[in-house]
Amino acid sequence: MTTRSDLQTPAPSTDVAMPAPATEEATTRHTREEISALGAGLRAATDGRRYADVRALARATVPARLMVRDAAQTVPEAREWTRRSLRELVGLGLAGSGFPAEHGGLDDVGRSCVDFEISALGDLSLTVKSAVHFGLFGGAVTSLGTDWHHENVLPQTLSLEQIGCYAMTEYGHGSDVASLETTLTYDAATDELVVHSPTRSATKTYIGAAAEDARIAAVYGQLVVDGRTHGVHVVLVPLRDEVGQPLPGVTLGDNGHKGGLLGVDNGTITFDQVRVPRRMLLDRYGGIDDSGTYVSDIDNDNKRFFTMLGTLVRGRICVAAGAAASTRKALSIATRYAVRRRQFDAPGHDGEVVLLDYLAHQRKLLPAIATSYAHLFAVTEIIERLQDLHEAPEKDQEAHRELETRAAGLKALMTRHANDTIQVCREACGGAGYMSENGLTGLRADADVFATFEGDNTVLLQLVAKGLLTGYKEMWGDLDVRGMVQFAARTLGGQVVEATAVRPLVSRLVAAAARRSEDHTLLDRGWHLSMFVERERHVLETLAARLRRGKDHDAFATFNAAQDHVLMAARTHMDRMVLEAFVTGIDACEEGEVRDVLERLCTLYALSSIEADSGWFQAHNRMSAGRAKAVTTQVNKLCAELRPHAVAIVEGLGVPEAWLGSAMLTEPEVWTPGVPA
Amino acid sequence: MTTRSDLQTPAPSTDVAMPAPATEEATTRHTREEISALGAGLRAATDGRRYADVRALARATVPARLMVRDAAQTVPEAREWTRRSLRELVGLGLAGSGFPAEHGGLDDVGRSCVDFEISALGDLSLTVKSAVHFGLFGGAVTSLGTDWHHENVLPQTLSLEQIGCYAMTEYGHGSDVASLETTLTYDAATDELVVHSPTRSATKTYIGAAAEDARIAAVYGQLVVDGRTHGVHVVLVPLRDEVGQPLPGVTLGDNGHKGGLLGVDNGTITFDQVRVPRRMLLDRYGGIDDSGTYVSDIDNDNKRFFTMLGTLVRGRICVAAGAAASTRKALSIATRYAVRRRQFDAPGHDGEVVLLDYLAHQRKLLPAIATSYAHLFAVTEIIERLQDLHEAPEKDQEAHRELETRAAGLKALMTRHANDTIQVCREACGGAGYMSENGLTGLRADADVFATFEGDNTVLLQLVAKGLLTGYKEMWGDLDVRGMVQFAARTLGGQVVEATAVRPLVSRLVAAAARRSEDHTLLDRGWHLSMFVERERHVLETLAARLRRGKDHDAFATFNAAQDHVLMAARTHMDRMVLEAFVTGIDACEEGEVRDVLERLCTLYALSSIEADSGWFQAHNRMSAGRAKAVTTQVNKLCAELRPHAVAIVEGLGVPEAWLGSAMLTEPEVWTPGVPA
Repeated sequence: MTTRSDLQTPAPSTDVAMPAPATEEATTRHTREEISALGAGLRAATDGRRYADVRALARATVPARLMVRDAAQTVPEAREWTRRSLRELVGLGLAGSGFPAEHGGLDDVGRSCVDFEISALGDLSLTVKSAVHFGLFGGAVTSLGTDWHHENVLPQTLSLEQIGCYAMTEYGHGSDVASLETTLTYDAATDELVVHSPTRSATKTYIGAAAEDARIAAVYGQLVVDGRTHGVHVVLVPLRDEVGQPLPGVTLGDNGHKGGLLGVDNGTITFDQVRVPRRMLLDRYGGIDDSGTYVSDIDNDNKRFFTMLGTLVRGRICVAAGAAASTRKALSIATRYAVRRRQFDAPGHDGEVVLLDYLAHQRKLLPAIATSYAHLFAVTEIIERLQDLHEAPEKDQEAHRELETRAAGLKALMTRHANDTIQVCREACGGAGYMSENGLTGLRADADVFATFEGDNTVLLQLVAKGLLTGYKEMWGDLDVRGMVQFAARTLGGQVVEATAVRPLVSRLVAAAARRSEDHTLLDRGWHLSMFVERERHVLETLAARLRRGKDHDAFATFNAAQDHVLMAARTHMDRMVLEAFVTGIDACEEGEVRDVLERLCTLYALSSIEADSGWFQAHNRMSAGRAKAVTTQVNKLCAELRPHAVAIVEGLGVPEAWLGSAMLTEPEVWTPGVPA
Repeated sequence: MTTRSDLQTPAPSTDVAMPAPATEEATTRHTREEISALGAGLRAATDGRRYADVRALARATVPARLMVRDAAQTVPEAREWTRRSLRELVGLGLAGSGFPAEHGGLDDVGRSCVDFEISALGDLSLTVKSAVHFGLFGGAVTSLGTDWHHENVLPQTLSLEQIGCYAMTEYGHGSDVASLETTLTYDAATDELVVHSPTRSATKTYIGAAAEDARIAAVYGQLVVDGRTHGVHVVLVPLRDEVGQPLPGVTLGDNGHKGGLLGVDNGTITFDQVRVPRRMLLDRYGGIDDSGTYVSDIDNDNKRFFTMLGTLVRGRICVAAGAAASTRKALSIATRYAVRRRQFDAPGHDGEVVLLDYLAHQRKLLPAIATSYAHLFAVTEIIERLQDLHEAPEKDQEAHRELETRAAGLKALMTRHANDTIQVCREACGGAGYMSENGLTGLRADADVFATFEGDNTVLLQLVAKGLLTGYKEMWGDLDVRGMVQFAARTLGGQVVEATAVRPLVSRLVAAAARRSEDHTLLDRGWHLSMFVERERHVLETLAARLRRGKDHDAFATFNAAQDHVLMAARTHMDRMVLEAFVTGIDACEEGEVRDVLERLCTLYALSSIEADSGWFQAHNRMSAGRAKAVTTQVNKLCAELRPHAVAIVEGLGVPEAWLGSAMLTEPEVWTPGVPA
């Protein structure tokens, strides 16, 4: 069994055959990564408080060959590469951090998110393969299981002796987990659970590792005891025997080729009356006692269900962090290309113009970089908060629900930014951007699925809106339309935003801006914050009022007519949360060049957001026509100001050059017109 | 040699070994495509005047197996499939239509665009492979060559005996064709042209068919005669011998795996003093006479260059049409899925809610469908105009330049819409959307490159702006910054928009709207048109004024500071052109349900565009705050009104169900929760 006593030194497992972690090669390579003082300062500012050393160590030790996969691999090749690389990842100490310390982990769920984030700077198949096994399967065993499960499952999970998968999604239901059709029926006569797929739509699908590698599954299904259904529970079900053959009653399929993540063997699972011992039920929140009676500390089925689903929070934080990491990598590639690639002569200028000197090109990349900085601060913050709450002596229910809501929102925001931005980066590199060897199209294809897995973005934003409308007081229900409408009906105008308290620093800045004259500068942070706060407050208050006015007899019609408003409420709330994280992060920096660049990036982020919602701000009398035009002018001005620092700014995004995996960045002479053959 | 005397009946080539076109199977299959009367009516309305029969015949005869490629194919498999399918495509009469009639074509360049559009409803590798050979290579020979080239090259091109490629792009220069580095130097001693790559950046790259199949290339390079450079010309250069080995002096490379279009063998070509006879120069616009002197009817090098590049217009129309076709296919898949997929119970409703009944889902798909209808009318119109101009007894230079400008703009608009919309469609199908077998991710990956090939979108939009600023009077220069600024300086305010005359129908509608009171309805077409016209006029006039005010000594700085403004001028112009095409198309329809649905789609298109630019309209006092909010309400209302017709509306998009290649649409029982196994 792998044990790790030292956070800082990757400790290869002793009983798993794996190649040496090759830290020497990696260190040598990374010693050569010379970055600017500004770049180093930006990295230090964004690495956060708690896991800065973990991030820095990974940048210096993880070898590039583990982070870059050949995009031309076939599905079998990609799966084999991923399988082998997973062992190396474990050897480097980038897996299982969230497991209990007594079973070889670090009991550090925050660290497990950082592990995910680091590996997401490399190949996303490996990231997801690892996350399914350690994060989802291992996480379910850790969080939903009890001592027996920990002792009997986690060791072989950590050693990769037994690969696990996470069998939640069915063909019939993805987002709507409460409606899963698989049944887990207790048979008192044999003291077993019978796992069954009663319909074709109950077939588990898109299950990572089900197609080839998984030997055991954490299966979500409706628990039926003595004829009564107790809602969704999770049971461990062995899938394959020692030689990899499906066990009796288990039918396994292969989802085949996907839009990306070719290294992950997603598959289908159908159960035909498969029997497992009672103890295989992960029974931390609800189980069956020796007398065959269902027992749970949580009486309400719905509340229990959402307490169990609450353990998904880490997965969503990981996906947010991973999407943000992929975006930073794409921006690093495209920006480094944009400062070397020249195109078109310009009158009165020597040589052809460097791409990034065009305003249109700056507009493509720099506001996206500013947003990525904002996201970096927000991600670092939520990861640290996750671990802080995990370590707290008493569980703070409301704080945890706030965290779940924030995780859902960040996941939606950051995966959207990832899909949009990676595509912009690919196009910004022209034909070269379309060649797989340059690293952008694979990133694009792999990160794509982040928009819909671990919670569909549209569904997650509704969850955020519900959290806001109910002040996190009632979260039992996912897309529970009736609950949302009823709660809104009980909420009085003005109350809603207070549910997410504005931070003291932010209050101060907003108050200071309010005291100043009306024509405060566009660069005033207090004005930015007040615009974000006001946008959120107004959208949320008018949403609550609208839902209150709705027809009581048709909650769905009321909700549905306002669905775009619901989504905007969630989005504007998350925008405010992200800006606050950025502002808080900057506040921790000393005066100097690093802080100055961060301030400009923050202003660019804030003004880009205001510019994008210019129509809303004007329609709601928050911004004059003149100011709307001035915002655009200021965005262009900031682009010009940040342009000279572009390389240092992408160094600050924290992606080592050796991990970029972009051929066009390593063959300079090909790209410079006029050099003799 | 293939000859075709009948437009309507696909005539398989007689002397090329190829499988029978299997029209029987296809016809049988398609007889079963039962579409609604509304769907059929919409198809009739959008199929256009001239090529309606070609489109209808293709839908009824092209077999699905030719249109759907297995996304799991490896690069070699995909290339082989594409190679074989190309022969079938020729057999079906979907290639070479633009060739002169005396050499086996139809002398119908419009038809060749329709051929491209039809094949783009299938697999884009096949589309592009065909387009490179017939459209780019064959097109260059046809347009830039003279009799000798037509007689000696076109027959073996049409029969696929000799695959050609189009060697324009170099590593160092893609968009900036005028700066290509390859040299074509005339050696009077041997009466040969010496083709040479003087630098590493002169290597031709991303050249379709260069990696494996091409035997001959149309090579762009700087023609040097007697020590003087005459600008870019095109010469035919054999690349491979009979057994496929590179000829002496020719070095061929393989671009390898790409982000999509795996069936196209893109590669690199380097020339080391390769000699070809003088007659290999495509000398329609400029050549070398028997005395070894350069001769051309066009004195100005720059003017000659852009006359030659003008032949690219068809390629851009094809890419626009292809991108639009891919988008329609994706929307057809996602919409058909959205009317069958159910998710989440709703209080007071029977069963779970169908995805497309959610407002948010309608918002994702229906405005995009409306835009696709707008694009369909615009594409059909420009294809017909291309052929009308081609057939005109005298070449109308200004009309041709307007066409080039419009083609550039439509290409930029439609490829942007394609990338955005296909991604929305993929996400709207959740996890299923990410499985290759469901057809969306492959479409997304393949269509991606449309944004940057056949002209980078950002560059093309600048070309449009320049056309507008100069009233199409001066088009000699691509991204010629100085020219644009100087012309703007000579232009008086108010003159600019008149360069693109508003159509009489549109003028009438706009005038009628202006006569009515200020609070005319949001549904008033005249109001929509006047908003589009005003937006364009104001953006263009203020751009001209801004360029005039710029510093004369630094034209680049003046241009660059306004680059976002330049792009907006182009975009708003194109939006107006597209809306006018839609309005004109509807005007040709009789009263009835088809027209009624088209009117609503047109309104949805117009209001979505106005909503997206809400910030601009308010900042420029073209729309009040109240009206801005009302536009959003009206967009939602239109979505609800169109929802019941969703299936008929996507039938109207003209993609036969059998060509969708989406497994999830053919396995209904899997997707309906609750059906017993």
